[in-house]
Amino acid sequence: MKILDAVLTPVAFADPPLLNVMGVHEPFALRSVLRLVCADGVVGLGESYGDQAFLDQARKVAAELPGHDVFDLPGLRRIVGRTLGDAVFADEHGLTGGFSVSKTLASVYSLFEVAALDAQGHYLNRPVADLLGGRARDEVEFSAYLFYKYGAHLDAEPDDWGEVLTPDALVGEARRMVDAYGFRSIKLKGGVLPPEHEIEGVRALADAFPGHPLRIDPNAAWVPKTSIGVAEQLDGVLEYLEDPTPGIDGMAQVAERANMPLATNMCVVRFADVEPAFRARAVGVVLSDHHFWGGLRDTQALSVTCQAFGVGLSMHSNSHLGISLAAMVHVAAATPHLTYACDTHWPWKTTDVIAPGALEFRGGAVAVPDRPGLGVELDPDALARAHEDYVRCGLTKRDDVSYMRRFTGSFEPNTARW
Amino acid sequence: MKILDAVLTPVAFADPPLLNVMGVHEPFALRSVLRLVCADGVVGLGESYGDQAFLDQARKVAAELPGHDVFDLPGLRRIVGRTLGDAVFADEHGLTGGFSVSKTLASVYSLFEVAALDAQGHYLNRPVADLLGGRARDEVEFSAYLFYKYGAHLDAEPDDWGEVLTPDALVGEARRMVDAYGFRSIKLKGGVLPPEHEIEGVRALADAFPGHPLRIDPNAAWVPKTSIGVAEQLDGVLEYLEDPTPGIDGMAQVAERANMPLATNMCVVRFADVEPAFRARAVGVVLSDHHFWGGLRDTQALSVTCQAFGVGLSMHSNSHLGISLAAMVHVAAATPHLTYACDTHWPWKTTDVIAPGALEFRGGAVAVPDRPGLGVELDPDALARAHEDYVRCGLTKRDDVSYMRRFTGSFEPNTARW
Repeated sequence: MKILDAVLTPVAFADPPLLNVMGVHEPFALRSVLRLVCADGVVGLGESYGDQAFLDQARKVAAELPGHDVFDLPGLRRIVGRTLGDAVFADEHGLTGGFSVSKTLASVYSLFEVAALDAQGHYLNRPVADLLGGRARDEVEFSAYLFYKYGAHLDAEPDDWGEVLTPDALVGEARRMVDAYGFRSIKLKGGVLPPEHEIEGVRALADAFPGHPLRIDPNAAWVPKTSIGVAEQLDGVLEYLEDPTPGIDGMAQVAERANMPLATNMCVVRFADVEPAFRARAVGVVLSDHHFWGGLRDTQALSVTCQAFGVGLSMHSNSHLGISLAAMVHVAAATPHLTYACDTHWPWKTTDVIAPGALEFRGGAVAVPDRPGLGVELDPDALARAHEDYVRCGLTKRDDVSYMRRFTGSFEPNTARW
Repeated sequence: MKILDAVLTPVAFADPPLLNVMGVHEPFALRSVLRLVCADGVVGLGESYGDQAFLDQARKVAAELPGHDVFDLPGLRRIVGRTLGDAVFADEHGLTGGFSVSKTLASVYSLFEVAALDAQGHYLNRPVADLLGGRARDEVEFSAYLFYKYGAHLDAEPDDWGEVLTPDALVGEARRMVDAYGFRSIKLKGGVLPPEHEIEGVRALADAFPGHPLRIDPNAAWVPKTSIGVAEQLDGVLEYLEDPTPGIDGMAQVAERANMPLATNMCVVRFADVEPAFRARAVGVVLSDHHFWGGLRDTQALSVTCQAFGVGLSMHSNSHLGISLAAMVHVAAATPHLTYACDTHWPWKTTDVIAPGALEFRGGAVAVPDRPGLGVELDPDALARAHEDYVRCGLTKRDDVSYMRRFTGSFEPNTARW
């Protein structure tokens, strides 16, 4: 089952001015869409990062794929390694841990692995979840992903979410999201306001949504002492505390004192991080993400490693479209240990590149598509529009910092600021 | 793709009087052969232990399978858990670590998982290795598995291997095996003679087979002090030292002083053992075995956990037939981190239940079958004969100890004897 062509299309889609430790989301989020064209008219889909550095690496690999058997995943990994060698691209937005050769290779491999599995599913007439060992659950639960946000982009009309910088506004944002999607778990992206304000926000959410598991993720905005203080103040309120402080050592200091599990997608982002973090008992929950953990199979492998060490598994999200959501749903369904609701930025976008209907949120969960492969289809017109938006917006990398400085000239990233 | 029936056939095959820490192999080794009969005439094959306790558990599960989708492996695991509950069977031969509920469930699940994957491969027209992510290698290397042995079973003619109790005889046994199969790595089952004799045996092998990686496995026959002494004396000679002493603590004491990696299939036999063993840095190589590690997928998951902690992976073997060898070859081929030559008792048997030709040793390695599923077929006549042997031999469990006492009345197992 030979690969004939691998076509990579960068796309952009509108994104609200969401705040985080690095600044504010620009008006467009970038993604790449992969069509892996195979023999007999089969096409496998993949989706990943859309910054120029990633596209450059992925295109080098794409050029090497024609003639490769789409079932030969170890061979695919070898092609990625051989093609990219020691090439690295900087993870400049800084929200998912440092960059490294291994993480770059894992990220590029992942894009192609997902598309290869989609194609395999089409050949075999089975959903991807079946190729991953079968579904441990029929639907996958997601969390409401709350952000502090500005009311409008620069030089733009206010969006319909409005400004969210107070506990009341946060509760309103959550209410809209929970009403529309049925989410149970609620996560707040923190690291934006001083910790005492964010504690107040979480408490307001706890009051407004009793029984809903709550999380806060300040993206390492706090020093260990502050983190321990927040953990004390939110004891009994949080399901987990995500990346309060930078680094394995800092996280271990906080973990020793915090009563809730610490979660991370910053200090454990590749298999090389697992041993030092687990030895130090730095984390209680790893947020997997197939986009940088080396694809769907390696995400499952990570889950077993976590399970063996009594570490829980949740799932990280960047801004993404439907192909990524489908991949997340299939791997989460086939990964028994993934018992925490997964993150998703889904509610923040207004367009997609896939035909509607395949992925629906009900009660905060998405049913695993029954159709072959990932179970989603490209909408060619929507893809063309999203690519036009990519060309028109002129963005080639994510840069929340520079954009934030256009709002607030003196802004510096908030990492370990408080 | 529904399962219609699950037919379990106990079989026996002739086994030479091989010596180990628990005594001596009886005249017949027991196995179970599973035929998972599915819709559309597809049959999946599995092979595992043949003792009565295992058969009793496996039969309970077999009765629950008709109607189950052969692609639903998480559901299969749930059926095993639900059917067996807290049932345990004693791992009475004592060579593969303690028994536990989790190990029993993993063992029974494994039998059915392998057969389900074989059936899936037939439905999808793909080799099992492809269902496990694709082959990282086209052939799988095995080691020569040397035993000290008696020349004949009780009341029987001498076998054609003859008695092996001296270094010279050991070299002769190795020569025959290496000549016939092309093995590179050579493993000696120790724990039979006092350590100084076994050291002499290993040295004789090193002299006779320069450049061949050597291993010795005394099945925890030695206390830590003796183990450290053996490690010193065989420094530079051994590829790894396998299970010199019992328990994670003992292994950790030895590991701290030994220059070669310690391998184990006794102190790490289930995922619950991984954390304590890895934290203690007790082992450098885990010998996987899909028969008790929960099948082919969990063996792959184990490999990633090992890789994340810088621990190597090899493969353990009990006496087995061709279905198990095929499963070992497929999973080893699809597991990149399985870089050590695998153990196999293959050369010690003279019959099989599969049609010949699918699995051949060349240069110490077996090529991955290209045919769908495991790529092996039952020989119905051979299966019938092996079942007749099972009935005729009257054995219902492995009991090397009692059989040894018929040679040497006062025999006690050698665990931590020296």
